[in-house]
Amino acid sequence: MSWLQDYAQFKHFLVSSPVEYVAFVEIIRPAKMNAFVEDMWVELGRIFARLSHDPEVRAVVLSGAGDRAFTAGLDVQAASQSPVFKGGDAARADASRQATQNRRHISEFQDCISQIEKCEKPVICVLHGISIGLAIDIACCADIRLCSKDTRFAVKEVDIGLAADIGTLSRLPKIVSSFTWVKDVCLSARAFGPDEALAVGFVSRVLETKAKAVQTAVEMAYLIAAKSPVAVQGTKELLNHARDNTVAESLRYTSVWNQAMIQSSDFKEALTSAVKKSRPRFEKL
Amino acid sequence: MSWLQDYAQFKHFLVSSPVEYVAFVEIIRPAKMNAFVEDMWVELGRIFARLSHDPEVRAVVLSGAGDRAFTAGLDVQAASQSPVFKGGDAARADASRQATQNRRHISEFQDCISQIEKCEKPVICVLHGISIGLAIDIACCADIRLCSKDTRFAVKEVDIGLAADIGTLSRLPKIVSSFTWVKDVCLSARAFGPDEALAVGFVSRVLETKAKAVQTAVEMAYLIAAKSPVAVQGTKELLNHARDNTVAESLRYTSVWNQAMIQSSDFKEALTSAVKKSRPRFEKL
Amino acid sequence: MSWLQDYAQFKHFLVSSPVEYVAFVEIIRPAKMNAFVEDMWVELGRIFARLSHDPEVRAVVLSGAGDRAFTAGLDVQAASQSPVFKGGDAARADASRQATQNRRHISEFQDCISQIEKCEKPVICVLHGISIGLAIDIACCADIRLCSKDTRFAVKEVDIGLAADIGTLSRLPKIVSSFTWVKDVCLSARAFGPDEALAVGFVSRVLETKAKAVQTAVEMAYLIAAKSPVAVQGTKELLNHARDNTVAESLRYTSVWNQAMIQSSDFKEALTSAVKKSRPRFEKL
Amino acid sequence: MSWLQDYAQFKHFLVSSPVEYVAFVEIIRPAKMNAFVEDMWVELGRIFARLSHDPEVRAVVLSGAGDRAFTAGLDVQAASQSPVFKGGDAARADASRQATQNRRHISEFQDCISQIEKCEKPVICVLHGISIGLAIDIACCADIRLCSKDTRFAVKEVDIGLAADIGTLSRLPKIVSSFTWVKDVCLSARAFGPDEALAVGFVSRVLETKAKAVQTAVEMAYLIAAKSPVAVQGTKELLNHARDNTVAESLRYTSVWNQAMIQSSDFKEALTSAVKKSRPRFEKL
Amino acid sequence: MSWLQDYAQFKHFLVSSPVEYVAFVEIIRPAKMNAFVEDMWVELGRIFARLSHDPEVRAVVLSGAGDRAFTAGLDVQAASQSPVFKGGDAARADASRQATQNRRHISEFQDCISQIEKCEKPVICVLHGISIGLAIDIACCADIRLCSKDTRFAVKEVDIGLAADIGTLSRLPKIVSSFTWVKDVCLSARAFGPDEALAVGFVSRVLETKAKAVQTAVEMAYLIAAKSPVAVQGTKELLNHARDNTVAESLRYTSVWNQAMIQSSDFKEALTSAVKKSRPRFEKL
Amino acid sequence: MSWLQDYAQFKHFLVSSPVEYVAFVEIIRPAKMNAFVEDMWVELGRIFARLSHDPEVRAVVLSGAGDRAFTAGLDVQAASQSPVFKGGDAARADASRQATQNRRHISEFQDCISQIEKCEKPVICVLHGISIGLAIDIACCADIRLCSKDTRFAVKEVDIGLAADIGTLSRLPKIVSSFTWVKDVCLSARAFGPDEALAVGFVSRVLETKAKAVQTAVEMAYLIAAKSPVAVQGTKELLNHARDNTVAESLRYTSVWNQAMIQSSDFKEALTSAVKKSRPRFEKL
Repeated sequence: MSWLQDYAQFKHFLVSSPVEYVAFVEIIRPAKMNAFVEDMWVELGRIFARLSHDPEVRAVVLSGAGDRAFTAGLDVQAASQSPVFKGGDAARADASRQATQNRRHISEFQDCISQIEKCEKPVICVLHGISIGLAIDIACCADIRLCSKDTRFAVKEVDIGLAADIGTLSRLPKIVSSFTWVKDVCLSARAFGPDEALAVGFVSRVLETKAKAVQTAVEMAYLIAAKSPVAVQGTKELLNHARDNTVAESLRYTSVWNQAMIQSSDFKEALTSAVKKSRPRFEKL
Repeated sequence: MSWLQDYAQFKHFLVSSPVEYVAFVEIIRPAKMNAFVEDMWVELGRIFARLSHDPEVRAVVLSGAGDRAFTAGLDVQAASQSPVFKGGDAARADASRQATQNRRHISEFQDCISQIEKCEKPVICVLHGISIGLAIDIACCADIRLCSKDTRFAVKEVDIGLAADIGTLSRLPKIVSSFTWVKDVCLSARAFGPDEALAVGFVSRVLETKAKAVQTAVEMAYLIAAKSPVAVQGTKELLNHARDNTVAESLRYTSVWNQAMIQSSDFKEALTSAVKKSRPRFEKL
Repeated sequence: MSWLQDYAQFKHFLVSSPVEYVAFVEIIRPAKMNAFVEDMWVELGRIFARLSHDPEVRAVVLSGAGDRAFTAGLDVQAASQSPVFKGGDAARADASRQATQNRRHISEFQDCISQIEKCEKPVICVLHGISIGLAIDIACCADIRLCSKDTRFAVKEVDIGLAADIGTLSRLPKIVSSFTWVKDVCLSARAFGPDEALAVGFVSRVLETKAKAVQTAVEMAYLIAAKSPVAVQGTKELLNHARDNTVAESLRYTSVWNQAMIQSSDFKEALTSAVKKSRPRFEKL
Repeated sequence: MSWLQDYAQFKHFLVSSPVEYVAFVEIIRPAKMNAFVEDMWVELGRIFARLSHDPEVRAVVLSGAGDRAFTAGLDVQAASQSPVFKGGDAARADASRQATQNRRHISEFQDCISQIEKCEKPVICVLHGISIGLAIDIACCADIRLCSKDTRFAVKEVDIGLAADIGTLSRLPKIVSSFTWVKDVCLSARAFGPDEALAVGFVSRVLETKAKAVQTAVEMAYLIAAKSPVAVQGTKELLNHARDNTVAESLRYTSVWNQAMIQSSDFKEALTSAVKKSRPRFEKL
Repeated sequence: MSWLQDYAQFKHFLVSSPVEYVAFVEIIRPAKMNAFVEDMWVELGRIFARLSHDPEVRAVVLSGAGDRAFTAGLDVQAASQSPVFKGGDAARADASRQATQNRRHISEFQDCISQIEKCEKPVICVLHGISIGLAIDIACCADIRLCSKDTRFAVKEVDIGLAADIGTLSRLPKIVSSFTWVKDVCLSARAFGPDEALAVGFVSRVLETKAKAVQTAVEMAYLIAAKSPVAVQGTKELLNHARDNTVAESLRYTSVWNQAMIQSSDFKEALTSAVKKSRPRFEKL
Repeated sequence: MSWLQDYAQFKHFLVSSPVEYVAFVEIIRPAKMNAFVEDMWVELGRIFARLSHDPEVRAVVLSGAGDRAFTAGLDVQAASQSPVFKGGDAARADASRQATQNRRHISEFQDCISQIEKCEKPVICVLHGISIGLAIDIACCADIRLCSKDTRFAVKEVDIGLAADIGTLSRLPKIVSSFTWVKDVCLSARAFGPDEALAVGFVSRVLETKAKAVQTAVEMAYLIAAKSPVAVQGTKELLNHARDNTVAESLRYTSVWNQAMIQSSDFKEALTSAVKKSRPRFEKL
C-alpha cells in the first residue's frame, strides 16, 4: 500500500499493513535482542506521531522481530557511554548543571515513548521472549497487551541502580489489579511469567506462541478497525482521560467530547449496516 | 408498607420491600428487554433521589423484570428518532447549536443515571441475561454487582458509532482490575460472560440463576441494613470520595466527616448489642 | 547490632534485625491479641519515622507476636473510655467542640499509622490469625502484604457503628482489583480469608504458616536490601506518587527526582558487580 | 414579551426584559431588605436553571428591589426557627443524625445559589445599599459585579457564630486580588465599601447611584447580548473551567470545546457584519 | 497569665498576651537582625503547633523584636557551614546521597514554617524594617499581613544562587494580584516597599511605624478573638481549603465541615448577645 | 555573536542580542501589523524551543517590530481561508470529522504558543500599539509584561464569533487580580488601556514609549541574566508549578527540585562575589 512509503525512512522499525486500516510495527534489531539506543526511541516517537493522524490507519499492532525478545530494554552498554550516566564521575564540575542535562534527557525520552499512548488509534502490544526494562515502559503505553507463553517479564531497572523513569512506575499502578504485586515486582526486579501477568491483568490474553499472539493481535486490530473510527478513537481518548481524572470531571469532558462526535455520520452507517447485515464503510479519519 | 406508596407513581419501575429497610427496584419493561426510553431514565433518577433520603430505606437492590434481560440498553429505535441523533442530517443548520443541544441532553442523561451513585444508601445491582450498553453504565453506578450464570455483557456503544457517554468509560477503569481488559471490551464491543466479569472484579459473585442472584442480593442488603446506618452510609461516602481523591485529601475529608459521625449513638447501641448478642436497633437516618 | 539500641525504648514493639540492613518490627501484646491502645500507635509512628532515615535499614518486615493475631484492631474496651467515644453522652455541652476534639484525635491517629507509608524504606507486612479493623489500616500502609493460611481478615468498623477512619477506606480502593469487592467487605464487615485476599490482590502471596510467611518476608526484604538503596527508595517514592497523581504529573515528578538520583555511584557499582558476578556494596543512605 | 410569562410564577423575584435578549431579575422583598427565606433560594435556583437554557436570553442582570439593600442576607429570624439551627438544643437525640440533616440542607442551599454560576449565560450582579452575608455568596456566583456608591458590604457570618457555607469562602479567594484582604474581611466580619471592593477587584465598576448602576449593567448586558451567543457562552464556560483546573487541562478542554463550536455559522455572520458595519443577527441558542 | 509558662522554654521567641485570647509572638534575635539559625525554625514550628490547640488562644500576632528587621532571613554565615550547602564540595562522594540529605533537610524546614499556616487560629504577621528571604516565606504562611512604612521587602534567594524553597514560590502566587509582579520580584530579587506591597495585596494595611502596626495587629486580633472561635477557626480552615481545591470540592468540604460546626452553642450565644448588645462569651476551643 | 546564526533561518522573527546572555525576539511583519499566519506561530514555537536550551541565553525579550502594533492577532483574512473556519460550510460532509481536524489544529497552535511558557529562561514581553487577540494569548505565556502608553489591548475573539482558544481564557484568570474584570473584558471584547492593565496587574510597568519600554525590558533582562541561571530557571519552574498545584504538592516538588539544584556551585560563587563586591560569573546552563 502506497501510504506505507512514508514509513520506509525509519531504520529500526518495519511498518507493514497485514490488512486494511491496520498498521503492524516491528522493532528490528533482533541481533541485539531489540535493545534500544537513543536513535530508536526517537524513531519510535516519530512513527507513532505519524500513525496518530494517518487516515489509512485505524489500529496498530506493535511487536519485536526475532524469536528471543520483544526487547531486552535499554542497550546498557551504549547507555553507559552517554553523558547522563557519566554523571557520577569526579570529572563533573557541577551537580546542578548535570541535573539539568539529565532532566532534559529523561523528558525527551519519556516524550518519545508517550507517543504510543498519545496515538489516537488503539495500539495492541504483543510481548514475547525477553521483555524487560524498557519493554514494560513501552507496553504500559499500549492499550491492549497480549503475550506468548515464553515471555519473561521484569521491571529490571533497580538492578542497574535506577528507579525506572520512562513510564513504568507512572502507569503500571493504574493498569493492573494489585498494588502489592506492583511493589513486589518493581522493588525486587524479579522476573515473572505470562500466568502472573494474566492473573494481575497486565496482559489480557496469553497465546501459545509468538506467531499465534501476533495473529491474534492482528485479528483484534482488524475487528476494531472495522468499527466506526469516530467511536473507537473517542473511546480511547475518554478511557485515558478517565484514568487521570475524577468521575465528575470525566463525565463533563465526555459530554463536551460527544457534543461534536455524536453528530457523526457513523451512527447512521452503523445502524443501516446492522439492519442490512453488511460490513459498514466509514469515512476516513 | 405505607412508605412504598410514594413510589407507586412511577410507570417503568416497580419498588417493593422484601424485608425491613430494604428497597427492591425493578425495571419493568420486559417485553422490550427492559430497553430504555427517555422517560425511564428520568424516572430512575427521581426514584434514587428519593431513596437517598428515605428514612425507611437502608439498602437497595436493583434488578430487571423478566428472564431475558437486565436491560438491552438504549431503545435504539426510539433514540434514532430523537433530535440528538438526527444531528447528522443535512437539514441541521448549524453544528455549534446542535452541539449545545447534544451536550445538554447528555448531561441530563448522565445526571439521572448518576443518582444511583449519589444515593446515600448502598445499591446492589443484580444483572442477568442481556446486560449491554446502558446496563453497564447503570451497573457501574451501583456499589456491589452480582450476576447470574446466563448473563451476557457488552460495552456495546462503538457498534452503533458512539463512544459510550453515560458513565461506563468514566467509571469502569476505576472498578475493575485490568486496564488492558477495559480497553479490550470497550474498543471491540465484544460480549463477555460471568466468569470473565468475576475474574476482573466487575461482579463480586456469580449465582446459578437470576432468582438465586436476587435472593442473594436481598440477603446482602438485609445484612447491611441491620448495621448502623451512620456507619454504612459514611462508608459508602468515604469510599467514593477516596476513588476520586489522593490519599492525603481522603484522610483529611475522613477526619472531618467523622468528627460529627463518631458522636453517634450507634456506637453505644452496637457495643451493647454485641455484649447482649441481640440485634441492635438503630435510629432512623 | 548496636543501632538496634535506639529502638529498645519502645514498650509495645520489638525491633530486631534478622539480617544486614533488614529491620523486623513485632507488635508485642499477644495476650490481648495485639490490640491497640493509644500509646501503641504513637510508638508505631515514632518507630517508622526513625526507620525512615536510619542508614542501617534498607527494608522492614512488620508482624505481630504470638499465634493468634496480627492484631485484633483497636482495643475497644480501652477506646470506649476515651473522650472521643464518650461524645454521644448527654453530658457533652457542645457538639461543635466535641467535633473539634474528635477531628484532632483522628488526625493524630492517622498521622501515626501513615508513618508506615511515609517510611522511605519498603515495608513488608506479614498478616496471620485475627487481622481485623486497624490491622487492615496498617496493612494498607505497607508496600507488600503476605499472609499465612490461617489469617482471618475483616474491615470490622461498621460493626461498632463507625466508618473506618484510619486509612482503610482511603487506601484499599487503590490497592486491590475490584471496587465491588471493596464495597462488599467494607459495607458488610464480613470476614474473608487468604484465598479471597490473594484473588483480589490484597496480598501477593499466601504461605502455609505464620513462621513460613515471616521467613519469606525476611527473604524478600533481604533481596531488596541487597539492591541499590537509591534505586529502591526512589521506586517506592515514585510508585506512591503515581497512585495519587495523573500520568503526566507523575512523569514530570519522575524526571525531576531522577535528575539527581541518576548521578548516583550505585549505577557503576551495579554494573561492575554484574560483570564480576559479585554482590554489590552500596554506600549507606 | 411572551416568553416572560414562564417567569410569572415566581413570588419573590420579578423577571423583566429591558431590551432584546436581556433578562432583568429583581429580588422583591424590599420591606425586609430582601432578606432570604428558604422559598426564595429555591425560586432563585429554578429561575436561573430556566434562564440557562432559554433561547430568548443571552445575558442576565440581577438586582434587589428598593433603595435600602441588595439583600441583608439570610432572614436570621426565620432561620433561627429552622431545624438546622435548633441543632444546639439539648432536645436533639443524636449529633450524627442532626449532622446528616444539616449537610443535606447546606448542600441543597448551595445547589440553588450555584445555579447562578451554572447558568450558561453571563450574569451581571448589581449591588447597592446593604449587601451582606448571602449577598456576597450570590454576588460571587455572578460573572461581573457592579455596585453603587452607597453599597455596604460585609462577609457577616462569623458574627452569628458560623463559617459562611453557601459559597463565599469557596469562591471569594478566586475572584479578588489579595488573600490577606479576604482573610481580613472574612475573619473580622467588618464592613467595607465600594472603594475597597473596587481596589481588590471584587467589583469592576462603581456607579454614582443604584439607578445608574442598573443602567450600566443593562448596557453591558446589551453589548454582550449583541455578540455571538456561541462565543459568549463558550467564553463563560472556559473561564470558569480555567479557574478550577491547571493550564494544561484547561487548554485540552478548550480544544475539545471548540472542535464543535468553531463550526458555528456565527463566525461568518460576525465577519460579514464587520465588513458591512451592520449589527450581526445570530441564530438562537 | 499562667498558660504562658508553657512557652517560656523557647529561647529565640518571646510569647506574651497583650489581651485575653491573643498571643503575641516575637522573634528575639535583634542583634543579628532576627536572622534564623536551624534551632529557631524548629522552635517556631513547635510554638505554632502548641498555639494551634491551646484553648487560651484565639488569635496570634507575629512580629520581630528591635527596630531594624522583622527578619533578615536565613543566617547565611551559619547556613554556609551546614552540610547542605557544602554539597558543592569536591569532597562529597555521591550526588544522589547528598540529594537525599538535602531533600530531608528542606522538608523538615518547610514543615516547621508551615506550622504557622496549619495553626488553627488566625495569625497576623507584622512586618517592619528588613523583611527579606525567609521573612517572605514566613509572612506567606500568615493569614493577614500588615507592615510599617519603613519595611524593605525582597524575595532575596536568587541573589545567593538558590530558588526559594521554604514556601514563597509555592504560596506567593496565590496571595497577591499579579503574576507578572510575582515573577518580577522573584526573578530579580529586587527590593520593594510598602506601597507596592499594598498595591498588589501582599499586605492589607500599611501603618506609620512598627509600634503602630503592632498595635493595629493586636486590635485586629482582639476583634477576631471576640468572635465565635468555632466560626473563626472554621473560616480559616475553609479559606485555606478553597485556595487549593476546585469550587465544587470546596463546597462539598464546607457542607461536611459545617454539618458538625453548625450545631455549635455559639450560634445562640451570638444571637442573644446581639439582641442584648453585650459582648458574647463563647466556650473555649 | 555567532550563536545567533542558529536563529537566522526564521523569516518572520528577528533574533538579536543587545547584551550578553539576553536574546531579543521581534515579530517582523509590521506592514500587516504583525498579524499571524500559520507559518509564524510554527516559527515562534521553534524559536522558543531552541532558546529554552541555548546556553548563551539567560533571559529573553519579546516585542513586535514597527510603531503600530505588537500584533493585531490572527490574520483573519488568511484564517478565513483555512479549512478550520470553512467548517461552517454546507459542503462539509461530516461534523465529527471536521471536529477532529479542528481539535488537532487548535492543539498544534496551542503547543506552538505554549513554547514561550515552557522556555526554561524568563521571557519579558513588551506590548505596544495594537495588542489584541493573539497578542493577549502570547503575552499570557510570558513571565513579565511591560507596555508603552499607547498600547490598546483587547481580548477580541468574541467579536469574530469565537471563544478564545489559544490560551487567554486558560491563563488570564491566573495572572491578574480580578475575575470580574477578566469576565468583563473577555465577554465584551472591549478595548482597555495601559492604566487598566496596570491596575489589575496584567502588566507590571507602563513606560512612556515603545522604545523606552524595550529599553526597560532589556535592562530587566540584563539584571536577571546576571544572576545564577540555576536559581533563575528554578524560580521560573517552581512558580509555574505552584500556579497549577496545591501548596502541599508545590512544597514537595520544590524539595525534590532543590535536592539537586542546591548542590550548585552558584551558591559559592554568589556568596564570594557578594563579599568581593564583584559581578559573579556563573557557569553556562
